[in-house]
Amino acid sequence: MDIYERTPHYYETDKMGIVHHSNYIRWFEEARIHHLESVGIRFAELEASGIVCPVLHVEADYQQMVRFGETVQICTSLDFYNGVRYGYRYEVRHAAGELCCTGKSLHCFLDTAGNIVRLRRERPELHALMLEQLQVDNK
Amino acid sequence: MDIYERTPHYYETDKMGIVHHSNYIRWFEEARIHHLESVGIRFAELEASGIVCPVLHVEADYQQMVRFGETVQICTSLDFYNGVRYGYRYEVRHAAGELCCTGKSLHCFLDTAGNIVRLRRERPELHALMLEQLQVDNK
Amino acid sequence: MDIYERTPHYYETDKMGIVHHSNYIRWFEEARIHHLESVGIRFAELEASGIVCPVLHVEADYQQMVRFGETVQICTSLDFYNGVRYGYRYEVRHAAGELCCTGKSLHCFLDTAGNIVRLRRERPELHALMLEQLQVDNK
Amino acid sequence: MDIYERTPHYYETDKMGIVHHSNYIRWFEEARIHHLESVGIRFAELEASGIVCPVLHVEADYQQMVRFGETVQICTSLDFYNGVRYGYRYEVRHAAGELCCTGKSLHCFLDTAGNIVRLRRERPELHALMLEQLQVDNK
Repeated sequence: MDIYERTPHYYETDKMGIVHHSNYIRWFEEARIHHLESVGIRFAELEASGIVCPVLHVEADYQQMVRFGETVQICTSLDFYNGVRYGYRYEVRHAAGELCCTGKSLHCFLDTAGNIVRLRRERPELHALMLEQLQVDNK
Repeated sequence: MDIYERTPHYYETDKMGIVHHSNYIRWFEEARIHHLESVGIRFAELEASGIVCPVLHVEADYQQMVRFGETVQICTSLDFYNGVRYGYRYEVRHAAGELCCTGKSLHCFLDTAGNIVRLRRERPELHALMLEQLQVDNK
Repeated sequence: MDIYERTPHYYETDKMGIVHHSNYIRWFEEARIHHLESVGIRFAELEASGIVCPVLHVEADYQQMVRFGETVQICTSLDFYNGVRYGYRYEVRHAAGELCCTGKSLHCFLDTAGNIVRLRRERPELHALMLEQLQVDNK
Repeated sequence: MDIYERTPHYYETDKMGIVHHSNYIRWFEEARIHHLESVGIRFAELEASGIVCPVLHVEADYQQMVRFGETVQICTSLDFYNGVRYGYRYEVRHAAGELCCTGKSLHCFLDTAGNIVRLRRERPELHALMLEQLQVDNK
């Protein structure tokens, strides 16, 4: 599990006075890129090496509103990895620990031509890192 | 079912060259506000009357990428309504009919103090419109 | 002069209850792409042909706030074109005509390697369209 | 002068492969809120006390593109303050020092009814902080 701290930006609020729900989807992306980097995978280098990571599914459940001036922690865990697809789960919490939002996302690896990349065969060092992280995040 | 047509904006693309996945969540919002207006409920007036509609859940499944220069149609249906909560389902299709993304969202009505508003009792005319639309969208 | 009509999206508002000022910069982009298309230049095709149009300068003066539920018209004119650089001016007005925001932007044409493209020599048909539009927008 | 460090988010890039120009306008906002906090003015508390700070003018000049995976520093200085209006100037630099973007913004203080707030009279402690910062940033 990786913890990513974030203070909402003013432009992320809406006229309800809270962070707009779509921004959590963007925070999830920030959080999983932070998680990957904590494992030693720099997302910019991954893409530079010819692998992109599209989103296949994303979902979020909103429990508590988050407001400008507050700080949240996003706890991110690798939830699933089978060599082809991988998924994360997210928990957004106020600094005091209160749960604001939970979420999930599912991804795959593609090459620049849009073909599925099987990490096990094509990038065994990444495959090992992902497997190891899956174990760490789920024990 | 309401159809809302949309051409992606340049700033909605990302470095993969496609519309960033978080923008579909924003398109869903545009589409359900368009759907409400087609039923005769102006969202700005609803809020001005003291009712806000937070998002409790949102999810999206991505099938085909959408690119700048393309046009999509977002088909929106009221999926669920029980007087307190209501949900929509969405289909994003290329002009040629190909499915790009499906999604769902769940909402409730709150007053400005954050209390649940039960439309049946407090806004019977809106309650009737929602019930009628539920029937239209699911026959 | 090209007129582009736009209703603000809910997610474009901020906690002040108005459209966030950064979104006008995005509206300017929408408006100038709309303007180019009105002249017969499809932006997606321009990029597909190997020409990108980075922004060198942008500015906005805010006179009146715009709110969700309102409609604005963005009047866009080609302000300047010298074969290498080109600039637009923008006026955002409420439906009733009241001025909300004025702006300017400056651009150039680059090839995909980042080199300046001189339309006069390399794309004379576009050069002619731009010159003609400059005259139309400034008489 | 206040220095605010920022790594671009993936969703801030566009199909040119660079950070979309509109996001610098958002970074300026982040940077000036960071600057205010460094002076002891918490923006969320300022608003909670009934003062909002709309943007009257913003401009940006783009020199170098910024890409995902890079880090930038935004140097922010209070450029102008006359008790009613105040302005900032911004420099966005790559970690190595190269200038990417410069900008300016102009603001005023309004109460919640939309009336100008004259800090000198109505909030003398903020007035003193602003005057002091003006001197610090311009010597």
